[in-house]
Amino acid sequence: MKENNAITNRDVDFAKWYTDVVRAAHLAEYTSVKGCVAIEPNGYAIWERMQQTLDKMFKDLGHVNVCLPLLIPESLLQKEKDHVKGFAPEVAWVTRLGNKDLEERLCIRPTSETMFCEYWKNKLKTYRDLPFLHNQWVNVFRNEKETRPFLRSREFLWQEGHTLHETKEEAMQETDRMLNVYKTFFEEYLAIPVISGKKTEKEKFAGAEYTLTIEALMHNGVCLQSATSHFFGNGFAKAFDITYLSRENKREYPYQTSWGSTTRMIAALIMVHGDNKGLVLPPKIAPKQVVIIPIGKEDSVKEQAQFLNERLNKIGVMSYVDDSEKSPGFRFAEAEVNGIPVRVEIGPRDLANNEITLARRDKDEKITVSIDVLEDKVTSLLEDIQNNLYNQAKKRMESMTYTAKNMDEFKEIIENHPGFVKAMWCGNQECEEKIKEIRGCKSRCIPEEQEHISDTCVCCGKEAKHMVYWGIQY
Amino acid sequence: MKENNAITNRDVDFAKWYTDVVRAAHLAEYTSVKGCVAIEPNGYAIWERMQQTLDKMFKDLGHVNVCLPLLIPESLLQKEKDHVKGFAPEVAWVTRLGNKDLEERLCIRPTSETMFCEYWKNKLKTYRDLPFLHNQWVNVFRNEKETRPFLRSREFLWQEGHTLHETKEEAMQETDRMLNVYKTFFEEYLAIPVISGKKTEKEKFAGAEYTLTIEALMHNGVCLQSATSHFFGNGFAKAFDITYLSRENKREYPYQTSWGSTTRMIAALIMVHGDNKGLVLPPKIAPKQVVIIPIGKEDSVKEQAQFLNERLNKIGVMSYVDDSEKSPGFRFAEAEVNGIPVRVEIGPRDLANNEITLARRDKDEKITVSIDVLEDKVTSLLEDIQNNLYNQAKKRMESMTYTAKNMDEFKEIIENHPGFVKAMWCGNQECEEKIKEIRGCKSRCIPEEQEHISDTCVCCGKEAKHMVYWGIQY
Repeated sequence: MKENNAITNRDVDFAKWYTDVVRAAHLAEYTSVKGCVAIEPNGYAIWERMQQTLDKMFKDLGHVNVCLPLLIPESLLQKEKDHVKGFAPEVAWVTRLGNKDLEERLCIRPTSETMFCEYWKNKLKTYRDLPFLHNQWVNVFRNEKETRPFLRSREFLWQEGHTLHETKEEAMQETDRMLNVYKTFFEEYLAIPVISGKKTEKEKFAGAEYTLTIEALMHNGVCLQSATSHFFGNGFAKAFDITYLSRENKREYPYQTSWGSTTRMIAALIMVHGDNKGLVLPPKIAPKQVVIIPIGKEDSVKEQAQFLNERLNKIGVMSYVDDSEKSPGFRFAEAEVNGIPVRVEIGPRDLANNEITLARRDKDEKITVSIDVLEDKVTSLLEDIQNNLYNQAKKRMESMTYTAKNMDEFKEIIENHPGFVKAMWCGNQECEEKIKEIRGCKSRCIPEEQEHISDTCVCCGKEAKHMVYWGIQY
Repeated sequence: MKENNAITNRDVDFAKWYTDVVRAAHLAEYTSVKGCVAIEPNGYAIWERMQQTLDKMFKDLGHVNVCLPLLIPESLLQKEKDHVKGFAPEVAWVTRLGNKDLEERLCIRPTSETMFCEYWKNKLKTYRDLPFLHNQWVNVFRNEKETRPFLRSREFLWQEGHTLHETKEEAMQETDRMLNVYKTFFEEYLAIPVISGKKTEKEKFAGAEYTLTIEALMHNGVCLQSATSHFFGNGFAKAFDITYLSRENKREYPYQTSWGSTTRMIAALIMVHGDNKGLVLPPKIAPKQVVIIPIGKEDSVKEQAQFLNERLNKIGVMSYVDDSEKSPGFRFAEAEVNGIPVRVEIGPRDLANNEITLARRDKDEKITVSIDVLEDKVTSLLEDIQNNLYNQAKKRMESMTYTAKNMDEFKEIIENHPGFVKAMWCGNQECEEKIKEIRGCKSRCIPEEQEHISDTCVCCGKEAKHMVYWGIQY
């Protein structure tokens, strides 16, 4: 590999390792626009796979896609008071069009609850119109101070689902249902185990009644809020005066949800599965699952490589041939840094023996098999890699999940071996603030499946209300 | 249909007919953001079909997708002088982030040549890196004064392809090749015939050496610039100091192209194929190709409808059942206004006779056929509709294409029966300006296949250089 693609050791400097992988695997490049990156072909191809998979999951549940305006008039943003308080400090303001100042400034959407409310207000007449199950794949902008590619950037890509329902129960079910879609997507496609639950009042989305979250653990023990699903009650509906004619012929306020996932998922992939050689992609999300590398200059080998590729494409495996003029070692390394799950090597001797060598990206293992069993072997290897990556991450997450009964234990854990900390909490925000003093540690979520660790709050010692997951976060 | 979905007669008021169709078919809604619409589920589904089709065509030619920042620093926009002159007057300026004024203001991208140049400058080292074949599907913003949904809006969605090449010849071939992709897409998928050729100097893209265009004719004889492909030479490369090490080990400037198509294509679909009942969609771009409408309340009929739907889905036809409680007439009208190419009707008597009725959207024709031949009949009907829509539009375009030998003829045509006017031109911009005085008539393009209409310029009478297509435009 080129010198500038050298990757820092993950255990030496995790942050530098991360940005090295982003650049070496050509996922993103810095630009002159502060906090905004260029998503490169390799990075965007991963995003496209994420989009295709999630989009199908959404549509299978009846959601339809729309696209609402990028710019939100200030007066619209201000209609829901908690929401504007949460977002106004971090938006970008458009104040001029061409050579003219605007009468009312417009912000670039940090999220689109307000635009959806305006749209729905015009559309909604009676209960027969409900539910509205909308989603959009768009860019948003938030004025983050410290930024890192994919992990936290000012502009990012995401999907935001916004739904409106007749009853509170139905909206709450939707909030649950969509969190489960994310959980399934993370575990089955990204091979990333997550914990899930409710955010505390302090950590919930600005304007929501409650927020559900999935949280993943990165390789260094730092937590990542990975996707969220919000229940709004009818607060926005009231603020925007959205009503419908009910089955009882009365004017009623509908109930609302929203849920989102972002290009941050690419950061999660890198930080959960990546290693010192670069990116490691789970086969079910890899845009290219198999690389076939002919060795030597013989035409017969190159032809066989093309033929193997056709055989794999035929059964739906996303493979490609790298027969560029670079040395085999260079091509191997390139496929490794890019995280291609399986590498098929074929040289003149292999061809003579009717054999190929299969190397898997997740483990340092190679097997030599008959060319005849290519399809079976590649298929089972891809499955095995997918499962192994998940199990490996799951095992690591479990080994990095601790319990704390008092603040000394809590501190010891966070300072010496970060991860998830399970601890009891009284429900008081003051205790959350105190815990935050330990390296910025925050509540991750109140999981649905509660465990009893002790009777008292880990911080104040008063009666505990919930078992909470805590951790240092990105 | 609801009263507010009534559609103005196309021949009485074309502009009002257009916006009526947009709203009645639920393609887009107005918002409080001036010149920006909410693209509704029916409109966005068409855009998704366009994206899927074009994206595959691009990728089959080796292009890869990226995503560059939405915001462009003013200093970057200013690097190429013709480009900034063309775009600076119509951009939206971000001047504040949160509560702080920016040191350098940022514009929302009106197009991304400048961002690509910055990105490429960092990436390009040697001739081995070339060509760069990039594309992105994003939103852009231009401060249009008079706006109409899809046709001309301040924010719109598009794809912008940007490529960089070793040689001038290769870049010019790419410019041609991508225009042909658009031409194929319009004719084979959208069923819209187009003329193609080179824009005059006056009408070319700001910063380009030349611009190629496809131009379509709307039902009312107004022309629509439908997609463009630009050759930049190495002007931007010089302005941005982008160089590479050539095969001869010298520093050289590469050659550049860009090409784009937008949500305006939805406007073209409406204005070429739509009628007084609403939208008419060509089967190859319709998100829903067939609607199956069970008549009456009998379960056996509803079950058969579901079964027919499964049979069609199985062979890849995008069909759905509308068994809502609305009257058959209402459901028929709804499918018509939405432009669904084929309607399958089935009632109790049909079921008893083992028959179904097929109605086509493009013609006032119904046929009754045996349920057994569903797949064959629907498939051939969809093909026939696709062809008929294209042939109908082609015939109309030909009947609305005129020739003019002098300004009197020119005026007579434009004032009495607008369409394409073929006329000779001396190559002088003054003549273009004079022709523009006839209801804003502009040159559409200089077609590759030149015809000899007369020896002299239609305007000044001096020696003619080119045969040019002219017309009133949107």
